[in-house]
Amino acid sequence: MDVSCTACSGQWPSADYRIADCGTSLAYLFEDQFFSGWTVLVLKRHATELFQLSTNERSELIEEVSMVGQALMEVFHAVKINYELLGNQLPHIHWHLIPRLTTDPAPRDPVWGIRHEKQTLTPTDLAERVALVRSRLFLKSPGSP
Amino acid sequence: MDVSCTACSGQWPSADYRIADCGTSLAYLFEDQFFSGWTVLVLKRHATELFQLSTNERSELIEEVSMVGQALMEVFHAVKINYELLGNQLPHIHWHLIPRLTTDPAPRDPVWGIRHEKQTLTPTDLAERVALVRSRLFLKSPGSP
Repeated sequence: MDVSCTACSGQWPSADYRIADCGTSLAYLFEDQFFSGWTVLVLKRHATELFQLSTNERSELIEEVSMVGQALMEVFHAVKINYELLGNQLPHIHWHLIPRLTTDPAPRDPVWGIRHEKQTLTPTDLAERVALVRSRLFLKSPGSP
Repeated sequence: MDVSCTACSGQWPSADYRIADCGTSLAYLFEDQFFSGWTVLVLKRHATELFQLSTNERSELIEEVSMVGQALMEVFHAVKINYELLGNQLPHIHWHLIPRLTTDPAPRDPVWGIRHEKQTLTPTDLAERVALVRSRLFLKSPGSP
């Protein structure tokens, strides 16, 4: 744990957005839902680069990334999932998993350059969307093909 | 193999940019070297989403992503590595591994929105940079901690 890290200290993401404990990581809905279903997967322990993890940790983490990506694909009927591990502003391993839908305003572009109004859900809509994604996770038992 | 896919057909990336065969993927220097060391890791077989791979394939692939990321960190003395699997324009699994250097014009932002002139290397500089990255790969034997 790095006490100066907003992910380690629990300042970000907000608990209201938490979807599930995935094992090595925690899944949260992203606070801007302009891209419906945008989820962040935050490593529980502090590390900044993939190569700082053990082989087992990397393997577990990518299984979680894949599982959440598949759930988002199904829940939101996505065309494509974008998987991004950046850390330029918050150097604590967290993946952005962004379902790109048929309604996407710029389907060929990365989301970062697409101008839009931030969309914050009402507490009711947020709880519903969190529950919806959560309901599609863990449908397979660990170790099943 | 998908015959309509430019990655499967070998149209992209160009062979001149090839760094190494990493196992499940091939590493190439990206054609725009404005961000020095930007590398793409292209899955050998055709798949569009992580969850279409087997657990073993995902594990091998993330080991390759991590190994190449570490080599780029060391070769270019990077502050941070960005790891991005998008596929919006070319839906064949390929990772963008982008070392972010101390000279980065916008270190807090994803690279996609940073306006710049495309930087294409001369054949000599390209060969040198490819050889430089290649020389830092595979320094550990497979299976070593």
